Formats: sequence, C-alpha cells, structure tokens
Amino acid sequence: MDIGERQNLKNEIEGIVDLILNDYSQGRDVDQLDVFNQPDRDSVVDIVKKLLRILYPGYYRDKVYRSYNDSNRIAIIIEDVIYNLQKQMAIAFRHTNEYENASDDTLTCGARCITLEFFRKIPHIRELVDTDLQATFDGDPAAFSKEEIILSYPGLLASTINRIAHELYLLKVPLIPRIMTEYAHSVTGIDIHPGATIGRYLMIDHGTGIVVGETSIIGEHVKIYQGVTIGALSTRGGQTLKGVKRHPTIEDNVTIYAGASILGGETVIGHDSVVGSNAFLTTSIAPGTRVSIKNQELQFNNGNF
Amino acid sequence: MDIGERQNLKNEIEGIVDLILNDYSQGRDVDQLDVFNQPDRDSVVDIVKKLLRILYPGYYRDKVYRSYNDSNRIAIIIEDVIYNLQKQMAIAFRHTNEYENASDDTLTCGARCITLEFFRKIPHIRELVDTDLQATFDGDPAAFSKEEIILSYPGLLASTINRIAHELYLLKVPLIPRIMTEYAHSVTGIDIHPGATIGRYLMIDHGTGIVVGETSIIGEHVKIYQGVTIGALSTRGGQTLKGVKRHPTIEDNVTIYAGASILGGETVIGHDSVVGSNAFLTTSIAPGTRVSIKNQELQFNNGNF
Amino acid sequence: MDIGERQNLKNEIEGIVDLILNDYSQGRDVDQLDVFNQPDRDSVVDIVKKLLRILYPGYYRDKVYRSYNDSNRIAIIIEDVIYNLQKQMAIAFRHTNEYENASDDTLTCGARCITLEFFRKIPHIRELVDTDLQATFDGDPAAFSKEEIILSYPGLLASTINRIAHELYLLKVPLIPRIMTEYAHSVTGIDIHPGATIGRYLMIDHGTGIVVGETSIIGEHVKIYQGVTIGALSTRGGQTLKGVKRHPTIEDNVTIYAGASILGGETVIGHDSVVGSNAFLTTSIAPGTRVSIKNQELQFNNGNF
Repeated sequence: MDIGERQNLKNEIEGIVDLILNDYSQGRDVDQLDVFNQPDRDSVVDIVKKLLRILYPGYYRDKVYRSYNDSNRIAIIIEDVIYNLQKQMAIAFRHTNEYENASDDTLTCGARCITLEFFRKIPHIRELVDTDLQATFDGDPAAFSKEEIILSYPGLLASTINRIAHELYLLKVPLIPRIMTEYAHSVTGIDIHPGATIGRYLMIDHGTGIVVGETSIIGEHVKIYQGVTIGALSTRGGQTLKGVKRHPTIEDNVTIYAGASILGGETVIGHDSVVGSNAFLTTSIAPGTRVSIKNQELQFNNGNF
Repeated sequence: MDIGERQNLKNEIEGIVDLILNDYSQGRDVDQLDVFNQPDRDSVVDIVKKLLRILYPGYYRDKVYRSYNDSNRIAIIIEDVIYNLQKQMAIAFRHTNEYENASDDTLTCGARCITLEFFRKIPHIRELVDTDLQATFDGDPAAFSKEEIILSYPGLLASTINRIAHELYLLKVPLIPRIMTEYAHSVTGIDIHPGATIGRYLMIDHGTGIVVGETSIIGEHVKIYQGVTIGALSTRGGQTLKGVKRHPTIEDNVTIYAGASILGGETVIGHDSVVGSNAFLTTSIAPGTRVSIKNQELQFNNGNF
Repeated sequence: MDIGERQNLKNEIEGIVDLILNDYSQGRDVDQLDVFNQPDRDSVVDIVKKLLRILYPGYYRDKVYRSYNDSNRIAIIIEDVIYNLQKQMAIAFRHTNEYENASDDTLTCGARCITLEFFRKIPHIRELVDTDLQATFDGDPAAFSKEEIILSYPGLLASTINRIAHELYLLKVPLIPRIMTEYAHSVTGIDIHPGATIGRYLMIDHGTGIVVGETSIIGEHVKIYQGVTIGALSTRGGQTLKGVKRHPTIEDNVTIYAGASILGGETVIGHDSVVGSNAFLTTSIAPGTRVSIKNQELQFNNGNF
C-alpha cells in the first residue's frame, strides 16, 4: 500500500467506526453502553466451576491455589466464591424493582446476607447431589464406576448446577441462576429452568435436548432420558403468563423414556408410572400406569427405491 | 528405569514417530501439512466473540483493552476485527476457484474490500438482532428481563451469530461463515446454516436440536422451538444437489412447536399458521392453518409390568 | 464496614467453612478428598485436542510449540501426548480390580505399554477418519469442501474422537475413553459410547441429539442424522445388564433419518435399508427395506384458533 491507499483505508475505517457509534445512539435495548451495570457471564461461570469444586472436593483439581492442606485449599475457594458471588449479586439486584433505587451499600449488604444464606445450603445441596449420583449409577448398566459418572456424565453435571441455581432462585436472586443453568445447557444440551422443583435421586441419561420448564414439579427417583420435554402447552400468552403454573407435575418413581413430551400445568403423571418413547401427553395419568405409543404404523417397501 | 530400559523406550517412541510421519505421506485428504493455508478456527471464534461485543456494546465486558472512553474502546475492537477478519478471509478465498491462482496482494485487497463492506452492514445486523430480542421477550413468560435474554438465552445467541454469518455468506466468503455457525451450534445445539434467509423478529426458545437448512426461507415473527427440523427431503443426491432449493419456505407469523419436521424445497407453510409438536410435513399448508397430530394412539397398562 | 461488622463477617465465613468441611466427613461418594487419585478431565481433554492435531496434521495450528520443521513439530506433540496419556492411564488403572493393589511402578509400566500400543493404532485410526471425511463430503450437498468439513462439521469431530476412544476401550483402559467421548458429546451434542463398534465411511449430519449405545454394531457406509437413538429397549435391569448386548446391529449401507429410534440388542437393520424420520423400531428388518411412518394423521383447522 502506498501512502494514498493507506490514508484512504484509514478514512474508511474511521467512517465505519462513526457509522457504528452513531448506530448506538438510538436508545434501543441492544444499545446500552454501561457494561458495569450487568452481571458478568464469565464471572458467573467461574463461580459455578468453583462451586463444583466445593461440592465434589475430591474431583476437581485446583490449578490456581496450591496448598498442602485440603482444608485450607477448600477454605480459600469458599472465601473466593463468597466474595465474587456477592459482587455479581449486588449488580443483579439493581435489575429488580425492589432495589432499583437502593444505594450501593444497601445492595452490597443485601447481597452479602443472601450469599451467606446460600452457602449454608451447601450441605443440603451436596446431600441431593449424592442421591443423584447413586440413582445414575444404579440405573445405567454402561456406568463403569461412580468416578466415571462424576468425571464425565452430563446428566449429573446438569442436575448439580441446577440444584445450585435453584437455591439461588428460591432466594429470589435475579439473572444469576439462569446464567448458571444456561451454562449447563450449553455444555450438556440439558435445559432445566432454575425454578423447577426436583426431588432426590434424579437420574438423567444422555440428556441432550431435555427441557424442564420453570414451574415443573418433579418427585423422587425420577428417570429422564434424552429429548424429553416437560413443558408448557402454549406460550402464546407470553409475558401475561408469568408466575402461572404452566408445567407438569411428575410424581415419585416415574420413568420418562427418550423423546416423550409432557405438557401443561395441570398435567400430573402419577407415581410409579412409565412414559414410553415419543409419547405426547397433555392430560394426567393415574399412578402405576405404563403409557406407550400403540404400534406405530410403519410402511415397508422392498426392492428398488 | 535403568539405562537399557530408557534406551528401549526412546527407540520405541522414535519408531512410533516414524510410523506416523510415514503415514502422512500417502497424499490423503487428512494428510495435508500446510497449516497456514487454512483459516484458523480459533481466530474465527475470537472474531465472532468480538463482533458480539460490537453488536451489544453494553453487555460484553472487555478483558483485553482498558480505556476510559466507550467510543475508544469500541473503536479499538472494530479495528482489531477488521484486521483479523481480513486476514482469515484472504486465506479462505484461496480455497475458491475464482481466487485459486491470485497473488497474495489480490487476495488481501479483495478481502479488505469485502471486510469493509461487511462492517457497513453492522447497523443493519443490529436492527435485526434488536427485533429478535423483542420477539423473545414478548414470547417467553419465563423471561425475567431483556438483560437476562442477552446474557443467557442460547436462541438469541444463535440467531445473532447466524445474522453475522449470513451477511458474510451473501458476500460469498467461503468457509468462515460456516465455522461461525458451527461455533454457535456447538455452544447452543442450534444448527442454522449461514445460507438460510431469515426475517425480522425471530424467536427461538430452548433451541437444542434445531436444524435449519441452507436454502430455507423464513419470514417475520416466526417462533421455533427445540428439536424442529427445517430440512431437505432426501440428500441421496449428495453433491449433485448443490445450489438447488432443498429446504422449505416459512411465511410470516408462523409458530413451529417442539420436534416438528418440515421438509422439502417446495414445501410452503402459509402465513399465520401453527405447526404442532412432532408434526411431520412434506407438503405445503395454506395460510392460517393449525396443524397438529391427531390424538396419538396411546396404550395404557396398569398394575404389574 | 466498621471493625465490629468486619469481625462478624469473618466469624460467619469461618462458620460456613467449618460447616462445609464437617459435611465432607460423612464418607459419602461425593466426599472423597484425594484429587490426585482421579484422572484429570482437563488433561484428558488436552490429550484429545493434541491427538486431533496428530490425526489432521495440516489443520490445527500450533500455539505452543514453534518449529521450522513439520516433522519436529509433530514429533514433539507425539512425545508430549505419550507422556501425559501414560500418566492419566496409570491413575485410571488404579480404579480397576485388576490393578487395585498394584505398585506405582507396575501401573506406570502397564500404562506405558498400552500407551505405545495405542499409538501404533494411529495410522489405522487415520485411515478410518479419512473414510468418514469422504462419506461426509459425498453425502452433503451443503458441503463446500473437505476443508470446511474438517474445520467445522461436528459429525466428523464426534466420529474422530470416538474412533480414538474406541481403540482405548478395546485396550481396556477405564474412565479415559468415556471422558473423551463425553467431551465430544459436550461440544457436538452427539453421544457415542466408546464401546460402539463402527465401520468405515460413517457419515453423521447435523448430529445434535444422536445417541449410540455401548454394545451397538454399525457397518460401513452408514448415514445417521440428528436426533437418532441406537439404544437399549429398557435399562430397568441397571447394573445387572452390564456386558449384555443391549443395543442394535446396523448393517452396511443403511441410512437412518432424523429422529428415528432403533432399540434392542437383538434388533438387526439389514444392509441397504433406509429408516425414515421418527420411525420407532424394536424388531429387525430385512436387507433392502425402506421403512417409513405411514402418513401421520394430521388435523387441520383453519380460521380462528
């Protein structure tokens, strides 16, 4: 490039920068320029990863902190997460009506209390996670060991992150629980809303494509396979449906095979039922029922096609 | 290990290195050794992430550049992306017949013009993205706020990356658009080919398993749920079908519920239609039609099983 | 915060640390504290990424090692992987009954031999991968070039990682093969168990939601689309079914379209068959059969709804 060309290019780039900066000034939702008033997705994901280390102290090797003593190692991670979770929470609270006009001190103070309250739930979360691990091992003949499940199964990872996010959801923390479960969704293909209420001994196998909606209630010892939707009948109501129970109730000891869809806030799958692959249910079924698609009508052609 | 063992191991490793290096000399497609003639996937992903910061200037915190001034911050990112996109594009063009024998200067020059042309489309892309955000908020009762959607919803992420890749596809840039959409596919489970033509106000909910083929045409205010395929009827023709319209047309205001499949290049879903869960359509339907599977025949067994 | 508040907070955090440390002492499966007796997932993922560089020497740019000579570059990566794979393998073997009480030397020695044996299979793995690449290019009209497939297609990535993991599975390496395939599952949505036996020229298109079970046997020139399950009929037997053939056999030249499910260890899909979208098969079909769902009964409503 000679000097003239170089100057032309410089002008063109300046023109583009101006074009884009002007485009930011239209006041649209995507135009907001105040990054420090948003929770930071990367920080929240980092918090999730550190919480996994706290939940499974023997499985996640620590690359940052080195210590000769497991207790110190864990204590350092706990303090780190308390500090950072509280920071992200204070930012997130700003987005609720309740705290809209609160001072920074109030936000920090509120965030600190809720962070500590969340941490007191960790033994409870670990108790639930241990039951999920047991259920997964018992239910999967391909599972070589519990170590293998902790180190590699997406189902356990998704349910663990969901149990973390659900506690934050119960504490009415905005934004952060959903960032956590969407992180889980991204790495596992399993999309469980933090609002869903899930009992002990959940087993998820394979998992890709599972959707569990916000107001679902799921009992104990439930098994869910890939591609299952526990969803709403219709969301045409959009924002007017906020808070309404739109998703099913699944009672204890239910197995839902791959690709089944169970929809609607009044649908109850009675305890000890089995829902077969690809079944599509929008009404309740009694306890102890086995539902399956009647032999699908298939067409067979032989020879040339 | 004693000295003998150590020598044996050394010999064995050398033998393995030779075995593998010899295996590279067979001239197979996987044998090519010229890494610098391929676009670099990691660089393209980095470009996508920076373009997301340009599209949503207030949501992606910057870890690399620090500046006191938002305009400077954005200007620096824009220049960085222009430089790197042009570099990857010059490499990619080498893979097309048109540029096969072009000099490096011609490639760089062509890549620069097309990069600048792409950047002039950014206000247009941002306009589309803003409509997708609005449609997602209006359509999802579980959405807490638009912030939550931008920070966590995979549907908006996939459609945003697709709108970027589609502009590059229209500019006939090879390889790079598909690397971008497959990055989106990897993190969201949503597989939209950069060639697909998509109108304003697209809403994708949950999204895992969605496939939208290269020659699909999708209107405005369309809602697509998880597991929907907008695909080809058959691809047995393989490479002979390149360029043929193989995928459906979806008109305005259509909702397609989870798991539905709509196939074939001549299939048109008329405006204001609703396609129910798991419906399988290979022919056109008139505007304003609601299609659903007739009550699936289910089999219920109670008691022991 | 004044000094009193600061002291209170310090006490609260100490209380929480004690609470969690006490919770670790219950002897549950999630309580294990010995991180260095577990294979490290991050190291295994790093090994996979380096093996991809060895398999496709021209496509993965090297960020760590710089060298003027391709052979040196590859040789350095090979030695690095041999060292690290052997290390992770020695840890993994500790989890098998056979090696439970073995000395560290025995473990290292066993791991070294098996690592070298695995590396001798690399030309064989590359041969298979080259056939998968060819099949994908031939079968997909949207494929612009083989470069595009290598750089962006999730199907080829998943089958490549699976072919690596399958060789380790055949060498009876515990834990590591599954960590590898679950890494592939995480980035592609394609879940193929390392135990599955798969012939040459596999083509996977789109791929999200595919599940292929541990004891599946798949022939040559098989095409599999998104959402296909090749699975077990029921896993209610749990761990008692370990080792039993629970998954189907798919013979040569079979195409399985999106969303089809083929279940059961005695189910055989005869060669040259086509299984249509969403078909649900639990019994064998003869060679040369085309199976499709009989026209799904759909319900059409026009006008207001």
